[in-house]
Amino acid sequence: MRIVVDAYGGDNAPSEVIKGCVMAANELDVQIILTGKESEIAELLKAESYPEGKITIKNAEEVITNDDSPVSAIRTKKDSSMVVALNMVKEKEADAMVSAGNTGAYFAGAFRILGRIKGVKRPALATFIPNIVSGSIALDVGANTDCKPEHLVQFARMGSLYAEHVLKIENPRVGLVNIGAEAGKGDEMSKTTYQLLSESDINFTGNIEARQIPFGDADVIVCDGFVGNVILKLMEGEAQALFGMLKDVFVKNIFTKLSYLILKPGLRNLKKKMDYAEYGGAPILGIDGVVIKTHGSAKAKAFYNAVKSAVVFAESGVIEKIKSQLTEQEEE
Amino acid sequence: MRIVVDAYGGDNAPSEVIKGCVMAANELDVQIILTGKESEIAELLKAESYPEGKITIKNAEEVITNDDSPVSAIRTKKDSSMVVALNMVKEKEADAMVSAGNTGAYFAGAFRILGRIKGVKRPALATFIPNIVSGSIALDVGANTDCKPEHLVQFARMGSLYAEHVLKIENPRVGLVNIGAEAGKGDEMSKTTYQLLSESDINFTGNIEARQIPFGDADVIVCDGFVGNVILKLMEGEAQALFGMLKDVFVKNIFTKLSYLILKPGLRNLKKKMDYAEYGGAPILGIDGVVIKTHGSAKAKAFYNAVKSAVVFAESGVIEKIKSQLTEQEEE
Repeated sequence: MRIVVDAYGGDNAPSEVIKGCVMAANELDVQIILTGKESEIAELLKAESYPEGKITIKNAEEVITNDDSPVSAIRTKKDSSMVVALNMVKEKEADAMVSAGNTGAYFAGAFRILGRIKGVKRPALATFIPNIVSGSIALDVGANTDCKPEHLVQFARMGSLYAEHVLKIENPRVGLVNIGAEAGKGDEMSKTTYQLLSESDINFTGNIEARQIPFGDADVIVCDGFVGNVILKLMEGEAQALFGMLKDVFVKNIFTKLSYLILKPGLRNLKKKMDYAEYGGAPILGIDGVVIKTHGSAKAKAFYNAVKSAVVFAESGVIEKIKSQLTEQEEE
Repeated sequence: MRIVVDAYGGDNAPSEVIKGCVMAANELDVQIILTGKESEIAELLKAESYPEGKITIKNAEEVITNDDSPVSAIRTKKDSSMVVALNMVKEKEADAMVSAGNTGAYFAGAFRILGRIKGVKRPALATFIPNIVSGSIALDVGANTDCKPEHLVQFARMGSLYAEHVLKIENPRVGLVNIGAEAGKGDEMSKTTYQLLSESDINFTGNIEARQIPFGDADVIVCDGFVGNVILKLMEGEAQALFGMLKDVFVKNIFTKLSYLILKPGLRNLKKKMDYAEYGGAPILGIDGVVIKTHGSAKAKAFYNAVKSAVVFAESGVIEKIKSQLTEQEEE
């Protein structure tokens, strides 16, 4: 499996990207291609050890930053690490791609260079959301902020296939984010989407109130990109805030400090479990190619996880399954 | 100050409502009127002690439940504890009202019986959201799920007045919930609202990403009711889930259990601080009357807090301030 990784995407590029890829080269059956400034990458790789030949470099002189306007960056920075990587997927020189770079540019670039799967109205940015049981996939989480009911139905379909074949969840339960659990709740869009999902062959289990998301009441969480983005970021902020306030509880006196030492390993695990950035793999679904987005602040472990997700995603054949299922729907 | 309390609203009615009102009668300078089944309430009051005459009962035989359709419940259940209480506010027999009952019915009833303040396009359900610093007010949190930019601007205006005069926050900072911090982010509605808020005399400090809400980056959090409802419920669920998982960390062995005993007081405080239901006071702003909604699962302490909020709200003169500010805006 050949995975191309944008070595200049994200806040910690290129050093953390490279470290994560070295981990992947050591532990997974992959061939990694890093795109970016060849001499700099080669210099950083010198300090690392990994199986000979499992990491190669494809030179790209430019970098797309978070300040760049997405669409024009893709058009003008043709020699950027991101565009060069996308072209490798297009030319079948790589089976999948990973980037932590500018989300808008990545989305626009995937759309423009790789194209949509036939029948897909709107590709969606999906992400893994941890919960007390294990985790769900939520989509859209920010790429589409003015969805129509038929878009949400397609998100449900694509998310189900991803949950089943990549996350290995049998018969995944699809929940529609809404402001009440009962049918007939919410705005016009929610009501129509509820109706369409009920009539479809999707395993739709009804509305899900945001309160239930952390409890894992659905495996596929379907929502408009505005709402999904709010959910994702609020979960992140709330966890950060709570852990910050927990710290205040621990530093009160010598006894609470001692307690902290005892609880530290458990707390660290818990924090990791709730940190969606740890999981590293957010697929853009509906694109005709395997593209994985990593959190902008991703570190080595998250890049390693993203490469792993890319491998499972590419091997799963989900793209082909989306193609056949959505083409079928179109023809009905 | 005369506060009418719907004794049959909420999951724990009437016993917890009555307990909370007894606390209020003992500690605050208020006159409380409980609406609902007189004999039942009188029976429950017998077991309580409070200053003679500070609690009275206004009989109402019917109850609006959560299963009732809001608009028709208000129309048909004229002798319900909620409608009777609303009518007391209308007839100036009470200065403010508190209910933990069916939110939709409460909102519809306030709208129908008390009416909107002149100039207010859409009354909004607001709520206190705790953060690591203290707390903000968020609106709308579920009453209006298809807002237009001009509605959000009015929410900002009403929320600012409430934050300043009831929460006592000087020159409150207004943040617009959006999927990016920079101007020009988000959907069309967000962009237009940003523009309108920037041009207004409101202390608008820009977009706020959901991640920053728990850190108190804004005092007034403005959003569409769908998004606000998701924020409120997700915060509730996330805190519950995290505290649940913390428990698992504590029960591992004898040492972690011992640590828990040491940390218990601090943790209990933290949990209370993050539980917005504790605060008890969610005003419906834009209604020509002081109406406070309490969480459906509210217990005595929350009812006590809600009565307290109602007193401060009524004394603040915010209704008059909204009237004069929105009429001015209308005339401009």
